[in-house]
Amino acid sequence: MKKALIALAVLGLTGGAAVAQSSVTLFGVIDADMKYVKTGDLKLKKLDSSGLSTSRFGVKGVEDLGGGLKAGFWLESEVATDTGAGGSTVNGSNAFWGRRSTVSLMGEFGEIRLGRYKTATRLHIEDFDPYSGTGLGDVTKVIADKTALGTLSGTQSGTFTRASNMVSYETPKDLGGFYGAADVAAGEGDGSNKMQDIRLGYKEGPVHVSAAFSSNGTGTKYKVSSIAGSYDFSGIKPALMYTTTEAGDAKIKAVTAALTWSLGQGQLQTSFTNSSANTAAQAIVGGDAKLFAIGYIYSLSKRTSLYTTFAQIDNKDGAKYTLGGAPAATAGGQKSSGFDVGIRHSF
Amino acid sequence: MKKALIALAVLGLTGGAAVAQSSVTLFGVIDADMKYVKTGDLKLKKLDSSGLSTSRFGVKGVEDLGGGLKAGFWLESEVATDTGAGGSTVNGSNAFWGRRSTVSLMGEFGEIRLGRYKTATRLHIEDFDPYSGTGLGDVTKVIADKTALGTLSGTQSGTFTRASNMVSYETPKDLGGFYGAADVAAGEGDGSNKMQDIRLGYKEGPVHVSAAFSSNGTGTKYKVSSIAGSYDFSGIKPALMYTTTEAGDAKIKAVTAALTWSLGQGQLQTSFTNSSANTAAQAIVGGDAKLFAIGYIYSLSKRTSLYTTFAQIDNKDGAKYTLGGAPAATAGGQKSSGFDVGIRHSF
Amino acid sequence: MKKALIALAVLGLTGGAAVAQSSVTLFGVIDADMKYVKTGDLKLKKLDSSGLSTSRFGVKGVEDLGGGLKAGFWLESEVATDTGAGGSTVNGSNAFWGRRSTVSLMGEFGEIRLGRYKTATRLHIEDFDPYSGTGLGDVTKVIADKTALGTLSGTQSGTFTRASNMVSYETPKDLGGFYGAADVAAGEGDGSNKMQDIRLGYKEGPVHVSAAFSSNGTGTKYKVSSIAGSYDFSGIKPALMYTTTEAGDAKIKAVTAALTWSLGQGQLQTSFTNSSANTAAQAIVGGDAKLFAIGYIYSLSKRTSLYTTFAQIDNKDGAKYTLGGAPAATAGGQKSSGFDVGIRHSF
Repeated sequence: MKKALIALAVLGLTGGAAVAQSSVTLFGVIDADMKYVKTGDLKLKKLDSSGLSTSRFGVKGVEDLGGGLKAGFWLESEVATDTGAGGSTVNGSNAFWGRRSTVSLMGEFGEIRLGRYKTATRLHIEDFDPYSGTGLGDVTKVIADKTALGTLSGTQSGTFTRASNMVSYETPKDLGGFYGAADVAAGEGDGSNKMQDIRLGYKEGPVHVSAAFSSNGTGTKYKVSSIAGSYDFSGIKPALMYTTTEAGDAKIKAVTAALTWSLGQGQLQTSFTNSSANTAAQAIVGGDAKLFAIGYIYSLSKRTSLYTTFAQIDNKDGAKYTLGGAPAATAGGQKSSGFDVGIRHSF
Repeated sequence: MKKALIALAVLGLTGGAAVAQSSVTLFGVIDADMKYVKTGDLKLKKLDSSGLSTSRFGVKGVEDLGGGLKAGFWLESEVATDTGAGGSTVNGSNAFWGRRSTVSLMGEFGEIRLGRYKTATRLHIEDFDPYSGTGLGDVTKVIADKTALGTLSGTQSGTFTRASNMVSYETPKDLGGFYGAADVAAGEGDGSNKMQDIRLGYKEGPVHVSAAFSSNGTGTKYKVSSIAGSYDFSGIKPALMYTTTEAGDAKIKAVTAALTWSLGQGQLQTSFTNSSANTAAQAIVGGDAKLFAIGYIYSLSKRTSLYTTFAQIDNKDGAKYTLGGAPAATAGGQKSSGFDVGIRHSF
Repeated sequence: MKKALIALAVLGLTGGAAVAQSSVTLFGVIDADMKYVKTGDLKLKKLDSSGLSTSRFGVKGVEDLGGGLKAGFWLESEVATDTGAGGSTVNGSNAFWGRRSTVSLMGEFGEIRLGRYKTATRLHIEDFDPYSGTGLGDVTKVIADKTALGTLSGTQSGTFTRASNMVSYETPKDLGGFYGAADVAAGEGDGSNKMQDIRLGYKEGPVHVSAAFSSNGTGTKYKVSSIAGSYDFSGIKPALMYTTTEAGDAKIKAVTAALTWSLGQGQLQTSFTNSSANTAAQAIVGGDAKLFAIGYIYSLSKRTSLYTTFAQIDNKDGAKYTLGGAPAATAGGQKSSGFDVGIRHSF
C-alpha cells in the first residue's frame, strides 16, 4: 500500500532518475472552525482557519542514497482556509514556504538539516501541549509571551518559534530512547536573527521526558527554558511542563498540567497553565494569568476529525493576555474566552 | 484508468493512511492569448493570460469516510501566464489560494463547505454566460458593474464574486433535477465583508433554469438578482438571463441572450447583453451599454483548445464600461472592442 | 520505470481524461550552502540558498495530441531555502511563478511558447558558463552588468534574463545538430518591457557552438551579443565565450574561458572572465574586472550532490562588481571573494 502511495513523478534538474525507495509526497491539512471569542466586552463570531492544527500545503521527499545515507527535502506553506491567503509573514514580508524549507542529509550519524523550520525548543513545547501551540488552547499565549517580553528585547523573540538560516542537527533514532537536537541560526549582519538552542529527551514505551533551552537575538537576549514529562497509562496520558521565559531581569515562570485521554472514537484533551511574572516582568506584561483549555476531537477517519474547544485566560492585575484569534484586551485584568467547533482534514 | 490516475501520495499530519477510494489531484489551466484591445482611440497589443478560462493551479481531494459520508478539500490559485504572478488580490493583499480554499463534508444531506470560494450567485451567472464571466466576452462587465455601483456603496461589492469566511450549503445531487445552494459570509468586525446569497435551480435533460439572489455589505447594500434559463437542442443551446444590480435607489437591469453551438470539433458561442440604468444609476455609471461577443473554440483534445474571440461594448451617453483587459475609457460614450486568439491547456 | 513515474493525477477543468502518453510532473531543486563572502573589509557568514542551482518548485506536463502534435505547460517558482520565501520579484511585485509560466504547442514545426521564461540569450550564456549564471561563479556578474549599464538605460535591462509577455519559437530537434530560437516580448504600453532576441547554434557529438543577440527596451536600448563554443574531449570540456554588452556608446567586452572536467564521482569546474569597458562604459561602471571561479561537485546520486566553490572578482580602478551574495562594494577597486560548501537535492 505504502509503495503504491509513493508514485509521484520525480524528474530533477539533473535529469535524475528515481530510485525505487525514493518518494515525493504532496501533503497538507485544511482546518476550519466556527469560532466565538470574547475579550472583556468585545465579542466576535467568525469562520476561522487552523482551529486545531495549522492549515498547510506541502511537498516533501526522501531519496535513498545507499549505504544507509538518505537525502531529503521539505517545503511547507501555511494556508488561511478562511481567506485563501498563503504563506507566513517573516520579517515583514510574505514567505510562501515560511513554515518550512529545508534540505537534509540523514545517516547513522543522525540528520543534518539546512534552512528554515521550527526550533527544537518549539517542538519540545508542542510535544507536551495537547493543542500543540495552536488554536484556542495554545499554551504559548501565556508561556513565552512574544508580544510582551519580546517587545522588551526588540524583535529578538522572532526566532523562538521558527528561524531562518538554520543549521540543525538531530541524533539518530536508535539510541535506546534517548534523543537530542540542536539549532544554530546565523544573524547574517542582523543580530536579532541569531538563535541557538538545544533539546535533550528520552522517549521509550509510555515514558517521555524532555528539556530544551533557547537563546534568541543579541544584547539583551530572549531566553526560553523548558522541562517536561508525560506518561501514557494505556490511552490516558498526563503531562507536566515547567517553562521560564527571560529577557534581562524580567522572568515569567509557567507551569502546565495537561491530560489527553483516548475516549471512544476520539480524544479528550485538557490543559491548565499558571503563568507568573516576577517584578521586572510585571512591569512589562502587567501581571499573572491562568489559561484553561478543554476539547474533544472526534475522528471520522485517520485523516478527518470534527472537534470542539473551550478555552479561557484569566488575567490578573494589569495582564492583557488573549487567546489566539480573540480581540485585543482594552484593559488589564480582563477575561479572554473562546469556543469553537471545527473540522480538520489531512491529505 | 481513473484508478491509476489517483495514485498521488497521501500522508497526513496524523500519519493518515489512504483509503482506496480516496484521491488527491493536482489540476490546473494554463491559458494565454494574443490580444488586441481598443477603447476610444487607445489601442493595445498584448500577450495576456486567461483569455477563455482563468489560468489556475490547484490541489483537491476527496476522502470516503464510509456510510455515504465524504470529506473533501480544494485549494485553487490564479496564475498570470503572461507575468508569472500567482494568487489573487483580496482586500488589498495577495491571497495565493484566493480562488478557493475550502474544506467540505458531504453526504446524503448535501454538502457543507467552509472557507473562501465563488458565491452561488456568481456560479449562476457563469452557467448562462458562454464566457463564464471571463475574458473579452465576460457579461459581468456590463451586468453587475462592480466598479460603478460598487463604488457607491463603498467596498461592499467585493463579496459578489467570491467571499472569504463563508459557510455554504449545497443540496444533494439526486433531487430529480432540482438543486439549491446558500452562502453566509461573516463580517468579522467589518460589515463590508458580510454576504448572504441563495440559488435555486432545475437541471434535467436539455432544460436548465436557475435563479439567484445576493446581498452584500451593510447599510446601503449591494444586491444582485438574476434569473435565467437555457435549452439544449442537441448541441444548439440558446440561453436567456435577466439580472438586476442595485445599491440604494440606483438600479441596473440587464438582459442577456446567448447561444452556444457544438459545431465540428469545437463550439461557436455568442452573447448579447443590453444593460440599462435607471435615473439614479445613470448618475453613477453615466448611461446604458450593449455588449456583443462572439467566438469559436476548437478542441485539439479534451484538455487542449485553440480559440478566438471578438467582443465590443457600445457605451451610450456618459457610460464608460470597458472589456476585460481593455484600456480605461477617457470619456463617456466610447466603444471598447477587442479581438484575441489563444490556447487553453488543462491538466 | 519512466512510465511508472508519470502517474500523477490529471483531471482538467473540462473534465479531461488523460491520454496514456500524457504526464504531469512535480519537480524541483532544494539547494543550500554555508557561505563566507567578503568585499573589501566587509565580511559575512551565512546560510544561503541556491549556491549551485537556484532552488525551485515546479509543475509541468506534456499532452500528446496525436499526429505529432503536443501541448505542454510549465510553472516554476523560486524557493529561498534559507528564509522560506517563494517566488521572484518582477517589476517590483512578487511573481510566484516568476521563473516560468508558459503554455506550448509542439510539433514537426518546432515549439511555439507563450508566457514568461528565460530569454534565448540567457540560455545561451548558461550553456557555456559552468555555473549556469548562478551562485558565486556566476559569469553574468561581470559580463552583462545589469546594475551598471542597465542603470544607464533605465530599467531596460530587466528583460535580459527573463521576460514577461513573450511569444517564443524554437526549431525542432532533428535538424542535424542545428537549432535556433527567437523571442519577442510585448511592451504593453511600457517600452521598457520590450525585448527581441535570437539564438542560432550547432550541437552534435562533442561540438557545441552558439551565438545570440538580445535587444531590450526602447530609446537607448540595452543590447547583449554573445558567441561561444565548447568541445567535449571525453569528459574534459573546455569552452570559450565572447560577450558584449552595450547601451548607447557604452560597451563592455568580456572573454570567458571555462573548463568542466568529469573527475571521479563528480565534476571539477573552473572559469576565468576578463571584462573590459570602453571609455563611455568606464564612466558608468568605473573600470575593468576579472572573475575567477573554481569548484567541485561530488555526486551522491543523480539527484543529490555536495559541492564547494571558491570565486573572486578583481576590480580595477573604480569598478565595484561583486559576487552574488557578497556585500556591496564601499569603494572602487576592491576585491570581492567567496567560498561555500553546500548540498543540492533535485526531485
